[in-house]
Amino acid sequence: MKTISTSLASLQSRLQKIRTQTETICKPLEPEDTVVQPMTDVSPPKWHLAHTTWFFEEFVLKPYLPNYKVFHPSYSYLFNSYYNSVGNRVQRDQRSTLTRPPLREIYTFRNHVNEQLGNLLENPNETILAEMLPILELGMQHEQQHQELLLTDIKYILSTNPLLPAYSSAPTSEKTQYVPATYHEVPGGIYKIGCQGSDFCFDNELGVHEVLIPDFKVMNRLVTNAEYLEFMEAGGYTDFRFWLDEGFTLAKTSNWQSPLYWVKQNNRWQRYSLHGLQDLDLNAPVSHISFYEANAYANWAGKRLLTESEWEAASQAYPPANGNFSDTGILEPTAAKPDQNGIQQLYGDLWEWTYSAYHPYPGFSMAPGALGEYNGKFMINQMVLRGGSCATPSDHIRTSYRNFFHPDKRWQFTGIRLATT
Amino acid sequence: MKTISTSLASLQSRLQKIRTQTETICKPLEPEDTVVQPMTDVSPPKWHLAHTTWFFEEFVLKPYLPNYKVFHPSYSYLFNSYYNSVGNRVQRDQRSTLTRPPLREIYTFRNHVNEQLGNLLENPNETILAEMLPILELGMQHEQQHQELLLTDIKYILSTNPLLPAYSSAPTSEKTQYVPATYHEVPGGIYKIGCQGSDFCFDNELGVHEVLIPDFKVMNRLVTNAEYLEFMEAGGYTDFRFWLDEGFTLAKTSNWQSPLYWVKQNNRWQRYSLHGLQDLDLNAPVSHISFYEANAYANWAGKRLLTESEWEAASQAYPPANGNFSDTGILEPTAAKPDQNGIQQLYGDLWEWTYSAYHPYPGFSMAPGALGEYNGKFMINQMVLRGGSCATPSDHIRTSYRNFFHPDKRWQFTGIRLATT
Amino acid sequence: MKTISTSLASLQSRLQKIRTQTETICKPLEPEDTVVQPMTDVSPPKWHLAHTTWFFEEFVLKPYLPNYKVFHPSYSYLFNSYYNSVGNRVQRDQRSTLTRPPLREIYTFRNHVNEQLGNLLENPNETILAEMLPILELGMQHEQQHQELLLTDIKYILSTNPLLPAYSSAPTSEKTQYVPATYHEVPGGIYKIGCQGSDFCFDNELGVHEVLIPDFKVMNRLVTNAEYLEFMEAGGYTDFRFWLDEGFTLAKTSNWQSPLYWVKQNNRWQRYSLHGLQDLDLNAPVSHISFYEANAYANWAGKRLLTESEWEAASQAYPPANGNFSDTGILEPTAAKPDQNGIQQLYGDLWEWTYSAYHPYPGFSMAPGALGEYNGKFMINQMVLRGGSCATPSDHIRTSYRNFFHPDKRWQFTGIRLATT
Amino acid sequence: MKTISTSLASLQSRLQKIRTQTETICKPLEPEDTVVQPMTDVSPPKWHLAHTTWFFEEFVLKPYLPNYKVFHPSYSYLFNSYYNSVGNRVQRDQRSTLTRPPLREIYTFRNHVNEQLGNLLENPNETILAEMLPILELGMQHEQQHQELLLTDIKYILSTNPLLPAYSSAPTSEKTQYVPATYHEVPGGIYKIGCQGSDFCFDNELGVHEVLIPDFKVMNRLVTNAEYLEFMEAGGYTDFRFWLDEGFTLAKTSNWQSPLYWVKQNNRWQRYSLHGLQDLDLNAPVSHISFYEANAYANWAGKRLLTESEWEAASQAYPPANGNFSDTGILEPTAAKPDQNGIQQLYGDLWEWTYSAYHPYPGFSMAPGALGEYNGKFMINQMVLRGGSCATPSDHIRTSYRNFFHPDKRWQFTGIRLATT
Repeated sequence: MKTISTSLASLQSRLQKIRTQTETICKPLEPEDTVVQPMTDVSPPKWHLAHTTWFFEEFVLKPYLPNYKVFHPSYSYLFNSYYNSVGNRVQRDQRSTLTRPPLREIYTFRNHVNEQLGNLLENPNETILAEMLPILELGMQHEQQHQELLLTDIKYILSTNPLLPAYSSAPTSEKTQYVPATYHEVPGGIYKIGCQGSDFCFDNELGVHEVLIPDFKVMNRLVTNAEYLEFMEAGGYTDFRFWLDEGFTLAKTSNWQSPLYWVKQNNRWQRYSLHGLQDLDLNAPVSHISFYEANAYANWAGKRLLTESEWEAASQAYPPANGNFSDTGILEPTAAKPDQNGIQQLYGDLWEWTYSAYHPYPGFSMAPGALGEYNGKFMINQMVLRGGSCATPSDHIRTSYRNFFHPDKRWQFTGIRLATT
Repeated sequence: MKTISTSLASLQSRLQKIRTQTETICKPLEPEDTVVQPMTDVSPPKWHLAHTTWFFEEFVLKPYLPNYKVFHPSYSYLFNSYYNSVGNRVQRDQRSTLTRPPLREIYTFRNHVNEQLGNLLENPNETILAEMLPILELGMQHEQQHQELLLTDIKYILSTNPLLPAYSSAPTSEKTQYVPATYHEVPGGIYKIGCQGSDFCFDNELGVHEVLIPDFKVMNRLVTNAEYLEFMEAGGYTDFRFWLDEGFTLAKTSNWQSPLYWVKQNNRWQRYSLHGLQDLDLNAPVSHISFYEANAYANWAGKRLLTESEWEAASQAYPPANGNFSDTGILEPTAAKPDQNGIQQLYGDLWEWTYSAYHPYPGFSMAPGALGEYNGKFMINQMVLRGGSCATPSDHIRTSYRNFFHPDKRWQFTGIRLATT
Repeated sequence: MKTISTSLASLQSRLQKIRTQTETICKPLEPEDTVVQPMTDVSPPKWHLAHTTWFFEEFVLKPYLPNYKVFHPSYSYLFNSYYNSVGNRVQRDQRSTLTRPPLREIYTFRNHVNEQLGNLLENPNETILAEMLPILELGMQHEQQHQELLLTDIKYILSTNPLLPAYSSAPTSEKTQYVPATYHEVPGGIYKIGCQGSDFCFDNELGVHEVLIPDFKVMNRLVTNAEYLEFMEAGGYTDFRFWLDEGFTLAKTSNWQSPLYWVKQNNRWQRYSLHGLQDLDLNAPVSHISFYEANAYANWAGKRLLTESEWEAASQAYPPANGNFSDTGILEPTAAKPDQNGIQQLYGDLWEWTYSAYHPYPGFSMAPGALGEYNGKFMINQMVLRGGSCATPSDHIRTSYRNFFHPDKRWQFTGIRLATT
Repeated sequence: MKTISTSLASLQSRLQKIRTQTETICKPLEPEDTVVQPMTDVSPPKWHLAHTTWFFEEFVLKPYLPNYKVFHPSYSYLFNSYYNSVGNRVQRDQRSTLTRPPLREIYTFRNHVNEQLGNLLENPNETILAEMLPILELGMQHEQQHQELLLTDIKYILSTNPLLPAYSSAPTSEKTQYVPATYHEVPGGIYKIGCQGSDFCFDNELGVHEVLIPDFKVMNRLVTNAEYLEFMEAGGYTDFRFWLDEGFTLAKTSNWQSPLYWVKQNNRWQRYSLHGLQDLDLNAPVSHISFYEANAYANWAGKRLLTESEWEAASQAYPPANGNFSDTGILEPTAAKPDQNGIQQLYGDLWEWTYSAYHPYPGFSMAPGALGEYNGKFMINQMVLRGGSCATPSDHIRTSYRNFFHPDKRWQFTGIRLATT
């Protein structure tokens, strides 16, 4: 992973800001909300708060702060996520056993580690600093990833509650408008794919390589709820012709008849959002669909999904403007804007499923040591998503960013963009 | 179910005491402890607090307090346990989805219902009172049952936490002594079995009937940890000859090698208790064993378990003295006392597994309406336990009391008493 | 187990007849039918043919025929059912892996063992004979039990085939008549329960003991298909009030809406039988129901099932006449006969579910050695059935005979008889 | 799919040969072997025999032979594999319910269809012929695919039998020699990938497209048992650093410690083969490993697997010579030959796992109708394998052939070839 050079003061301030943001996200929660795990994919918010802190303690303070004493001898066991190199840990599906330490104790842990990171950055040894900075940067990026996970996991947790409580009150929203779908040429050719600048990126973006891409056309915005409803009403969920076989079987056995969080009451579609149950905005992009649904929709529409190289080529051809990220506080995808030329919503709103498996780039190799486990060991059975979402911090995304989930997952902020030849 | 006649004032005071006791049990918990459900058998403590209150609202306030307005329209759905007659409800294994309402709201609910029950009992209509009193009594008995369940569920919840936190500090304990096992004659004959007095009992104790019981001998105390360790060290867990086949298979696939909560560290046996991890008291009765283990132990020892009729006959022959109930605050089983004649520990310390299926007594019939679902529908695949435990309130037990659990359950305070012909 | 004294010649002839009968049962099968195992409860017919032979080899020939050489060194591993004492074995749910040895080889095995048993009985040593005869008797009884299992397993195997092939052609049947239900007094008192004569019985029937039984009334025949249909049409399968909770849940999750083998086509009920799909005979007894369904029916009808002591008392009061056993070749239950006094169908037609758990009689103890595993280790979670069925050999049944299955099982020939107080 | 032009006579003869070959493969089986299904991936051989015949009946005879009457009205339901377009069918995991029709009946079905295909080809209408020929060709290719599946499924079926019977006797084998591993340059550049000639290929090979491939080096032969043993003895199966996370978890929970079919007895490794249990030939290629194991081995060896484009580029650079296909009758992979230059074993011996997901080529689209379900709906969660195996007919393979299995599958003839940059 590459890192940025920066003044220590601005680093301190950025670190502080990121650490605070995580706590801001958790502020609306009851202590009880922070400990449950309604499915294995979801982690208890308290665990996120602790794990992101453990990351700094384990990979920054322990190696680089002389005489650092760990906050609690058991926390490495309790809050290690999946680093075999670091040792044994609470199994992923057992995170709700951690009713203790209580939430307030985790905040004490956070404060302690924040303070010690401050000490570490006060009078740093230059050699150590050079070695440590990339890891500190990774810690901040890691915490930002968990900020998105916190929002998606909180959404899922609250949605399982029969009371369907809102996480936050809805922002005032203007009436949205219909934006017609158009397709825009992306010229074929050899594209450089992967992280090319000197700014931070994850190891899975490295191994810049050239890919030969044929001409294709890309949709100007994300697929909307209205368009997806058409697919549903045309019997999309029960017509095998549009589906990958495993997806069709899953849809049947799981009784999928709409995206996750959709609820039909009195013949009216609503959807659970972080602001509670809301009427479906037909112009907003359809979200919380699996890869299987995205691909079935594309087949039904006579189009297809992009590959990840195509997505990156498209965003090189049409550099994405600022989008609807978590900074806006909206926390749900919003409708495309009328009267805009070019390609909208490449950044923010929703992660876009690509028809590319999450595999290593040519020349990828896992880093040695624990941090080599960060990305590489997950490169099977998952699909790449691109572009960030309304739950992603705006300074966390870039064109080469590769997110990845299994094709059946629906609790992330996922959406659909189409392509055609 | 029968009920006791009583002055309204003493009833009020008893009701108040029982309601308060439930909250006292929950006082040492963090809010996070009160919401998780590490296995389906265990309910979140917050749910117990709410459900026992729902019981009074549903079965007492709604029918008998004129113009009673329910505290919250969703609570009947949220906190109904298993009463089909009352309607739909949160599925048993989904109780940890109830992170909301938060704990403090449940206390408000409790206070509200307490207050309204107070109003109801202020100036009661005599006819209504006569109809209502048995149900009020049932509500109090029901809440006492949940007090025991709270203690067993809290124990289980905290035991799954890698930190093994204590629920409460251990009482000062004297050094225990070894009490030899002796066997005492119970004369054969026709015994009246079932609830015979006019005091309260559950419907499953009614249908008093005569049972012809042959002479047998009953052990003077519960089987001790030392005696059970002998069985373990003799290879008891791997010798099929002593086991029921389903139990042996379960022990193998679940890797049972000791009672629940036993931990061997540095070649020393300890056990998790409500007071944290403690050294094994060899003279204390073995607890947290399944029926399968109890029966295997009995076979290994060349003895057998009692039937429930025999247990009741024995307790008619040797009326049980006061025992170690939850009132003592010890909350764990204690060793038998030396220099005592007769039969000890029939009451309190541990529920005693009998080799009797939990079936209806002759003449049993389910009551009409929702309360008919209280007991009768569980009369299959479960075994009867007798005598109460260290987690049972002392005024909740009687000779005819039938507790029941599946033969594989271990999280209750269960123990072994032997018999021989 | 007790055994009968008998002349060697008649013993030989009886042994021969029983051994041949097993093969007669398998004659209509294709080799492919004999190897599959569509559910764990069902064993492949080829396995039954081999296992009953293994029983004689293991328990008679090996110990009692000097210099006996086993037919094949692996067969003890392949065809041991559940005797831990005998050693490792193919797991119960893996019996369909035994495509080899092929069927014809199993017949060679059978002939070999038959021949050697003949040799053994030619010039027996008197002392050895005395020891061996009870085991030989057990082997024959054991084989008769497997004859019934063969018929029930074959029925199940063929029923899973979409072609619904018939096992044999239907016997010519006369038109049946409706026989009204009547209830007959069984006088209360102390009854001797258990096997009292000197004829053979299983160890689980021993421990004759006295049971005090109150007056009750018993139904004159089995519950009919017409009566059960009424229950179904009254919504019996969806009305929780009649059901044990575990049964109701199972019925829902398994989507039970009728007895096993019932098929509704074009609004007409048919049932799969050993003679293929047939119209429902409304006067025939309802069969292939679980204990849960039997008990729900009884509750709906305002009656109850008998206990096993009551059943035995009833059959002492009304000694059963000859019934519809496998010898008749009908192989399905038949309607009660009109114009008969007293109690019909106590023997044959269908095993009658009782509301008694299969537990040890007072004084029961497992025999030492492998044969102690025959019955005792199954005495949990199962319910007793009485009276034999249309798949039971007529010389295999007696009043004290205790059959036992889990309350959810439906593939046996099970039925319902009601009682009332 | 493309097809070849050919004279009708040679077509007839080829069809005949292929149909006969399937039966030849099944000749050594007992009827009982042909009906079981020890895991869902495996189909009963009888089902293969019928399904390949059903394919011709459904897709050739029904549409193209005037007045064709189906052999049996239920066979379309019984022997349809996964074609939703054709209608309902026996669920994949329920194929062992088909004990009827018996094997001999399936052969009658085969003969009937063969005869009718002969009639169809006698005096064909030219227009119909043009339409039908590609489907007939597909039917033959389809049957050849099932010939390979028959061999792998038979191997698995017999391997679950504790007797470990041999399918056929082993061919005489010469002593093998060690061939050192060398790496050969494949020059980078733009390669045309996909089926380019006019011969038959599957639809998933179409959409010829250009891929930019950098320089790389490819191993001269497959990885051997000796090399894989080194990995095992170095603790490969327990060292997480070499594994994809899902693979490592699977290896642990499935207790994988060696390739499938390996057995260690008396400290000596043997492997189950179609010729029974045999000593491990250290020079033979390691087989029956999952993608996870192949990839872990590559990581341990400091190399990597090829992508499917690289494999195709390599085979364009080093055109594969004839290999060890099913025609040789060896039916197990054989050691590389000494003193050979260039790249061996690209064709035959073992399918080579690539690190490429089985996704559509650019421009791929499913054919309309039932045959569109042939390949496209499986394009998720599977990895591409290349080159054919010792169970593949030699006239069934080509450079562009894409086989595909889930990364956890081990019962196919799979192997490892390494690459490096």
